Amino acid sequence: MPDLHPFDVATSLVEKEAGRWSGQPSVEYANMVGSFGGVTTATVLNAVLQDARFLGDPVSMTINLLSAMGPSGFEVSSKLCRTGKYTQHWSLELEQEGKLCATATVVCGVRGDVFAHQSVQMPDVPPADGIAPMDGRGALKWLDRYDFRFVEGAPAWTGKPNDGLGSARTAVWVGDNPPRPLDHLSLAALSDSFFLRLLHVRGTMEPMGSVSITTHFLASRADLAAQGSQPVLGVADATRFQGNFHDQQMQLWSTDGKILATGTQLVWYRQ
Amino acid sequence: MPDLHPFDVATSLVEKEAGRWSGQPSVEYANMVGSFGGVTTATVLNAVLQDARFLGDPVSMTINLLSAMGPSGFEVSSKLCRTGKYTQHWSLELEQEGKLCATATVVCGVRGDVFAHQSVQMPDVPPADGIAPMDGRGALKWLDRYDFRFVEGAPAWTGKPNDGLGSARTAVWVGDNPPRPLDHLSLAALSDSFFLRLLHVRGTMEPMGSVSITTHFLASRADLAAQGSQPVLGVADATRFQGNFHDQQMQLWSTDGKILATGTQLVWYRQ
Repeated sequence: MPDLHPFDVATSLVEKEAGRWSGQPSVEYANMVGSFGGVTTATVLNAVLQDARFLGDPVSMTINLLSAMGPSGFEVSSKLCRTGKYTQHWSLELEQEGKLCATATVVCGVRGDVFAHQSVQMPDVPPADGIAPMDGRGALKWLDRYDFRFVEGAPAWTGKPNDGLGSARTAVWVGDNPPRPLDHLSLAALSDSFFLRLLHVRGTMEPMGSVSITTHFLASRADLAAQGSQPVLGVADATRFQGNFHDQQMQLWSTDGKILATGTQLVWYRQ
Repeated sequence: MPDLHPFDVATSLVEKEAGRWSGQPSVEYANMVGSFGGVTTATVLNAVLQDARFLGDPVSMTINLLSAMGPSGFEVSSKLCRTGKYTQHWSLELEQEGKLCATATVVCGVRGDVFAHQSVQMPDVPPADGIAPMDGRGALKWLDRYDFRFVEGAPAWTGKPNDGLGSARTAVWVGDNPPRPLDHLSLAALSDSFFLRLLHVRGTMEPMGSVSITTHFLASRADLAAQGSQPVLGVADATRFQGNFHDQQMQLWSTDGKILATGTQLVWYRQ
């Protein structure tokens, strides 16, 4: 059996009984505190995708990050709230050592071949293979698990305040390292793979963290198959930083200019 | 005692016990089926705001709409998941006649006077009082409870397909009718006051509905007080319509150009 990709190891769950799963944080995706939030998000989503009752495709997910996770095993519990003709609704919780670390809701949908339209055009960017990857070695462990090629808004990593405020907008080609075929799990993780906008604007690493992450999955299965292991184009921006919180919008694009996912998150910062 | 505003009647709840509230749909906000989703959203949020344990300000909310509501009384149950130093997390459910109609998560935050920055500029639009209000009389009941003044992307309401596809973008001054001082409850409702993007793009009223709505509240209390009962500027757009679902991003702006809330929703459509 070939070795599993680290992402598949990190997001794997063992079913204890219907709607109750156990998992283990992966050191491969370690963050400053706990794990990279995108992998936590994908792991919780996996408790839906692996469930025998799962119907259709995931279409929307919101995860709330309540407490930083430690290195010990955790449990994901799911509740199937409703299965209708067109949609299926789930509520989930992730607990570690009796402490609630995340709550989430996932909506699945039955997709058909109906009206289709994309009302936005992909930004005009150079291809990924002409851009040097960011050198993140020695920094956070999870950064090694992604290949980042910045088109616009690369972080300066000087640790010094920006000379004036920087732009909140980033465009970056991003993919799993090593490459891995795109699926809903990796889309969920990539949705949280952006450095928090506050870092780009201020230039300094302040105490900050994602509080609530919402992702809408708009890719068809054919889009995912066509994208394969190629990096996706991520675009992130923010509108306002106020009273310890800022928003962060994101889009994930396929190589050939299709929207794969869009979303928003709320970020907390201390000062 | 002066008469309550219809919005306050519609969103009012009676506490049955800690974390259990009862409410009644308001005919004033009736939609094609059930109630206007924005009022359902605000009502669920009210179960947090009215709770003795509520801390800080609401900063993020996601509501999932599972089933259309009927005219009978309903119950909102809330679970306080965590109160930390900076954030408070809630999970909520709305049931009617034993049927789960909505699930939601709400994050509250303790806000301080810290770094503040708005990284986007308000669109250059004419003031609300120079634009004629949309005449929605005789259509859906909830439309009468808002004053819509379209700057860009007014719906044609012809019921005929657009000549080509229309723009997904709308800019509209919108306020309660009669006017009511802005607060987090009305921001939550206004976040869902946009006509669904599919209607603007196709020009026809297809079977469709909001599935999941996320709002980030970025206004300070001073912003809300300064806005008072003036209409806010709403801007909505979408990126992709595919396989029975489309996304819908929105921004709510104060008269003086501050972002009050941003968010996104996922919309289901049938054909």
